[in-house]
Amino acid sequence: MSTVDDLLARRARHLPQAMSLHYDRPLHIVRGDGAYLIAADGTRYLDCINNVSHVGHANAHVAEAACRQMRMLNTNARFLYAELFDYVERLTDRLPAALSVCFLVNSGSEANELALRIARARTHRRGTVVLDGAYHGNTTSLIDISPYKFNGRGGEGCPPHVQVAATPDPYDGRFRGESSGSDYAQDVTKALERSTQAGHPAGTFITESLLGCAGQVDPPDGYLAAAYAAARAAGAVCIADEVQIGFGRMGDTFWGFETQGVVPDIVTLGKPIGNGHPLGAVVTTPEIAESFATGMEYFNTFGGNPVSCVIGSAVLDVIDSEGLQEHARRVGEHLEHGFADLAKRHQAIGDTRGRGLFRGVALVTDRQTHAPATSLARTLVQQLREEEQILLSLEGPGDNVLKLKPPMPFSEGDADRLLDALDRLLTDQGE
Amino acid sequence: MSTVDDLLARRARHLPQAMSLHYDRPLHIVRGDGAYLIAADGTRYLDCINNVSHVGHANAHVAEAACRQMRMLNTNARFLYAELFDYVERLTDRLPAALSVCFLVNSGSEANELALRIARARTHRRGTVVLDGAYHGNTTSLIDISPYKFNGRGGEGCPPHVQVAATPDPYDGRFRGESSGSDYAQDVTKALERSTQAGHPAGTFITESLLGCAGQVDPPDGYLAAAYAAARAAGAVCIADEVQIGFGRMGDTFWGFETQGVVPDIVTLGKPIGNGHPLGAVVTTPEIAESFATGMEYFNTFGGNPVSCVIGSAVLDVIDSEGLQEHARRVGEHLEHGFADLAKRHQAIGDTRGRGLFRGVALVTDRQTHAPATSLARTLVQQLREEEQILLSLEGPGDNVLKLKPPMPFSEGDADRLLDALDRLLTDQGE
Repeated sequence: MSTVDDLLARRARHLPQAMSLHYDRPLHIVRGDGAYLIAADGTRYLDCINNVSHVGHANAHVAEAACRQMRMLNTNARFLYAELFDYVERLTDRLPAALSVCFLVNSGSEANELALRIARARTHRRGTVVLDGAYHGNTTSLIDISPYKFNGRGGEGCPPHVQVAATPDPYDGRFRGESSGSDYAQDVTKALERSTQAGHPAGTFITESLLGCAGQVDPPDGYLAAAYAAARAAGAVCIADEVQIGFGRMGDTFWGFETQGVVPDIVTLGKPIGNGHPLGAVVTTPEIAESFATGMEYFNTFGGNPVSCVIGSAVLDVIDSEGLQEHARRVGEHLEHGFADLAKRHQAIGDTRGRGLFRGVALVTDRQTHAPATSLARTLVQQLREEEQILLSLEGPGDNVLKLKPPMPFSEGDADRLLDALDRLLTDQGE
Repeated sequence: MSTVDDLLARRARHLPQAMSLHYDRPLHIVRGDGAYLIAADGTRYLDCINNVSHVGHANAHVAEAACRQMRMLNTNARFLYAELFDYVERLTDRLPAALSVCFLVNSGSEANELALRIARARTHRRGTVVLDGAYHGNTTSLIDISPYKFNGRGGEGCPPHVQVAATPDPYDGRFRGESSGSDYAQDVTKALERSTQAGHPAGTFITESLLGCAGQVDPPDGYLAAAYAAARAAGAVCIADEVQIGFGRMGDTFWGFETQGVVPDIVTLGKPIGNGHPLGAVVTTPEIAESFATGMEYFNTFGGNPVSCVIGSAVLDVIDSEGLQEHARRVGEHLEHGFADLAKRHQAIGDTRGRGLFRGVALVTDRQTHAPATSLARTLVQQLREEEQILLSLEGPGDNVLKLKPPMPFSEGDADRLLDALDRLLTDQGE
């Protein structure tokens, strides 16, 4: 068995420094099991990080489906095979009727990259309005529209064709209270106006419906409806980035955009869609898809291959057969009450937010100013791992939001374990 | 069993028009087996198209490795797991010693996209010199550097930061004969000069070493060595796109760039690397990788996951255990002699070229002018399918080059079958 030091030495020789690791002393993982990751020393860690392993680590049904298909056929979509249509029919059936045309790709980045190409082909405009703190992927065009990257370390600032609207954060942002939904939407209108003034009228408005990298931010009611209306009035196409939040994780709804009562023009899917298998999708209307039929073929070698399709289908099977959306709703509610209860006893908890099994707990040093308790947050993450065998990551501009997005089989018992651990550690810290 | 019409109707409802199919009457494929694809009606087709299914359709060893790992663990590279290092060590061992740092991604497009980002981070230059007819992938940045796309249907022409050098085609291009290698390299020098004059000095020179979309063109000896020297003298990084040609297909060499005796600064890998599994890689030097460590994390959710890594490793296992590189050399030589023999008897064969199991047969209406026999080529492809159960595609600007890039288990018997079929069909056509 390799030791952590061995692996780190091998990593240093062959992996780039631009890639990073969880924890200063990273974990050597050898096995997954539902909501758990098992380290080389046998420790079972409760995994609150891997939303990608949506229906559970090492899910047997997904593995069986993949194995069967790999032994049968894997080729590309210039040939006809039923697995592709079986899958896109099931996938589009879950989406609003208008969204019926599907491109299958190999990652969330490929999905957002393609969605951007499609929106630009539709509008003949490169201008894009994005939300502050957003991350949409790792290609050149996507870093250009990701403030999380272009304003972050190593970033080169906001490009001229991009305008940034405020994070619609009801806790920590510019606007609070009842009218904050329309106030934040008003900020999108201003960004659309700036786009025109800058000579790059917006053809695209892209957002997550529950914002991940910005700090697990759940926008106020009415926000996206008003923002979409403004974007469309300005001639832009609305893209809903569901890469982090889709496939039942919200609990009440299957998709994130449904929590805001909107129908996007383009939806992009990734991470959970294949339970870890490299898969992504772009779904749009026939009209918008037609605008992309410029005569230039879109070909994606691996996109929509039969193995990826049966894996995608198997993930939908498990979501349904195990009732994972309803499970996310129930366990999410349990967590919500639990975090609310913790907040009564621990001053460090400034805000608890999110939906279903996509949640954030903002730690603050001062409940009036909301000053981020970054150091406490980092200590907690370390202690959760070492003392409680729970894996959790941080998010948000202050690096102070505990980010909860576990595999969906995460149970009420797992929730209690996390809540008890936080209670104990915050008490020990005198918080 | 679905009929072709059924599938086409389902396809029309849910797939975009921008995607295309092989053949006017596409094939409904249900199974793969080595170098063969099996249609729903039971017909076994000899597959000369799928270079992606490198070690053979439905390869059992690759499927077993994937199944085992899927049942065990699939997570991301922010955790440590041995499968990643086992694979990148094996992969970099096959490359020149200088190329030791590896980024794993999910497709050839993701690989070229990332390579371009790395080259630009290294040189702080966006200018790029490419070869005419080249295709490097489906992202915005890659279409910008792919003349095959930006000069093709629906294309928007060459962007200002890109300069196009001539296809180094010893048969059909501008330069012929002994000095053509340095003549074509001279054309790269001119493109580099134009880059500077246009205000976008070149930071990147990217090529395939045996050109696929340009028509299976094997550059003259000495070409890349001189072109790389010119590019480096001008301050550009040299990227070898091995997405179509790598992993032993050349026969004599494991990589395409080795046929030209050069060592690239960055190598990109895709298609055959995972036998159809979505996998790609960028390999570069520690110095260039370090230039990319700007502080901005590079994260790729699925890139380098343990399942992808064991699949990549299993592909290398099969290449070695079945001696597929030597097999490609031997069968390739057999094809070379066979095509040369056909060319003696059939005037329509203007040129036969390529290496190993990556070959082209250019069909012409006139051996003096090299006028493309496009119509004959299309007829042959149709007849090969219908009368001979052989699948073959066309390539090149005249759509007249029979493109041969079968799964590597393609045997001498398969080669004879193809040669006999071509002989018979050309004779019947009076060619």
